[in-house]
Amino acid sequence: MSPMREAVARLASPMDTIAAYHFGWIDRHGCPVSGDGGKALRPALALLSAQAVGSGAEPGVPGAVAVELVHNFSLLHDDVMDGDETRRHRATAWTVFGAAQAILAGDALLALATEVLLDAPHGSTASAAAARAIRRITTATRQLIDGQAQDLAFEQHDRVTVAECLEMEGNKTGALLAASCSIGAVLAGADDRTADALGRYGHDLGLAFQAVDDLLGIWGDTEVTGKPRWGDLRRRKKSLPVAAALAEDGPASRRLAELLADPQVRDDEDQQLAVRADLIEQAGGRAWTRDEARRRHTSALAALDEVPMSDQIREYFVTLAEFVVVRER
Amino acid sequence: MSPMREAVARLASPMDTIAAYHFGWIDRHGCPVSGDGGKALRPALALLSAQAVGSGAEPGVPGAVAVELVHNFSLLHDDVMDGDETRRHRATAWTVFGAAQAILAGDALLALATEVLLDAPHGSTASAAAARAIRRITTATRQLIDGQAQDLAFEQHDRVTVAECLEMEGNKTGALLAASCSIGAVLAGADDRTADALGRYGHDLGLAFQAVDDLLGIWGDTEVTGKPRWGDLRRRKKSLPVAAALAEDGPASRRLAELLADPQVRDDEDQQLAVRADLIEQAGGRAWTRDEARRRHTSALAALDEVPMSDQIREYFVTLAEFVVVRER
Repeated sequence: MSPMREAVARLASPMDTIAAYHFGWIDRHGCPVSGDGGKALRPALALLSAQAVGSGAEPGVPGAVAVELVHNFSLLHDDVMDGDETRRHRATAWTVFGAAQAILAGDALLALATEVLLDAPHGSTASAAAARAIRRITTATRQLIDGQAQDLAFEQHDRVTVAECLEMEGNKTGALLAASCSIGAVLAGADDRTADALGRYGHDLGLAFQAVDDLLGIWGDTEVTGKPRWGDLRRRKKSLPVAAALAEDGPASRRLAELLADPQVRDDEDQQLAVRADLIEQAGGRAWTRDEARRRHTSALAALDEVPMSDQIREYFVTLAEFVVVRER
Repeated sequence: MSPMREAVARLASPMDTIAAYHFGWIDRHGCPVSGDGGKALRPALALLSAQAVGSGAEPGVPGAVAVELVHNFSLLHDDVMDGDETRRHRATAWTVFGAAQAILAGDALLALATEVLLDAPHGSTASAAAARAIRRITTATRQLIDGQAQDLAFEQHDRVTVAECLEMEGNKTGALLAASCSIGAVLAGADDRTADALGRYGHDLGLAFQAVDDLLGIWGDTEVTGKPRWGDLRRRKKSLPVAAALAEDGPASRRLAELLADPQVRDDEDQQLAVRADLIEQAGGRAWTRDEARRRHTSALAALDEVPMSDQIREYFVTLAEFVVVRER
């Protein structure tokens, strides 16, 4: 049994069922499925981060499980808050089990993440490492929550600045990727300086990831992403392309600002949403965000250079960063 | 500044505001109020548990803050899930700030609880104690979540047994009170055997507490409890008096079972709810639950006798237990 399944099996009913459904291991009737379990980017980074400091992947395993649990805690809750009905081409957990049980399942995954780290091997050095790992993941969790709160608040604003948007995305995505990239190193006994450098790689990778996510949220192929078409535009989400477009000074930017500030404009017509997407592109929001993803990709790799590691491990980190920037889902 | 306010002040906006409102420190406009901050039973027990093992209250402080944060995490989420519109004579947080922000504020309090324990004084002995404290509170949190899930599931069942109800209440209330009564001792360096005995006191105190809560949920004076009148009956909640009444074999019990199983019966008429309350009483559910509270009170005090402590501290524990059983809110 995989470490993730082992952790989830510790949950009581019905939390275990809801989590297993959410992870794509079973369908709504409880039958096993071989599904699309998501990208599992965070666990891969956590294992690599242990290997980066000269250890095997093994000590990073509890960290890999913990970051994936925290990530999925946030997905379960976000889907309830955002009212999203599909994720990974499937009905979201709250639409199947109700909002209350989906909230509880999220809560349970968050508590389980801490528990898994407490269960990491003992001995005084290992215990101190586990405490440091718990601190990193707890701090990241709080930032993740702050980021989601900012994201929701932005939907009520007529405009947000690029700086505000980047801060929000740093919290919402950067923080947990920073924790993912440093937690394995911490569990393997690395010092804070090394872990922090790996964390900076993760943070910038997170911002690159989020920039690409924002692009896919508007121009992605919904068949490939598995996300609802125009979902971001329908909610008047102030993602990076929107913030960058609004920061420009030109007719397309001004027209976009008018549309977003007008409560009379309908959010449920595809044609209206297509107009918004075009205005964002004309005002340079798409190009700016694509460039931003490249910039963060470059700075992530620069942070990686601060940590001595084997060529093979470095190559994996570089490949993952590349994957984040070129992905279509 | 109190340690609770100090902890909450670490939250980012708007989580800090939502938490401060929920705790009754500010009103919905952000103005300070001297309100009804709740019973603060759990922090009191956490401090006492440090003193019970011969320490001052001081080492118990992070534990006191952590259990109160976890308790309020669960209140914030429960109010959303149950759709309750008032608590402590005030509008619940989700009715003021929206469900999404209330869920996030709950999430933030849960993460903050772990953070507060990680910040407890360092040194290798203290770190090991903090890790043991985090384990106790994390386990209790998971049980709390399981208990709420069971509670929600029971609303869909026509009947539940007394045993099922006690298991649910042990999870929902007993577990966090057990953690409250042992966490201070753990932080003060007590061994697991001592902490476990204090935990058993807390667990049974929790069951006594919940039995009284269930009585107040039906027959309490809503002016005093601050909870919506007939809320438990309206939701067809399978609380202890209901489960005990259904376990009887008599006309009142059978009539009650019929009413609870009938989807046609209206839940929004006070007269209908008054009939249910009468049937529960006639079937002995009220008397059984009152006796159960007394039984748990007695067994809690018996667990207390296993731990040598000063007469003064013991007296406080005894007084708190008495308060739990005789309270009217």
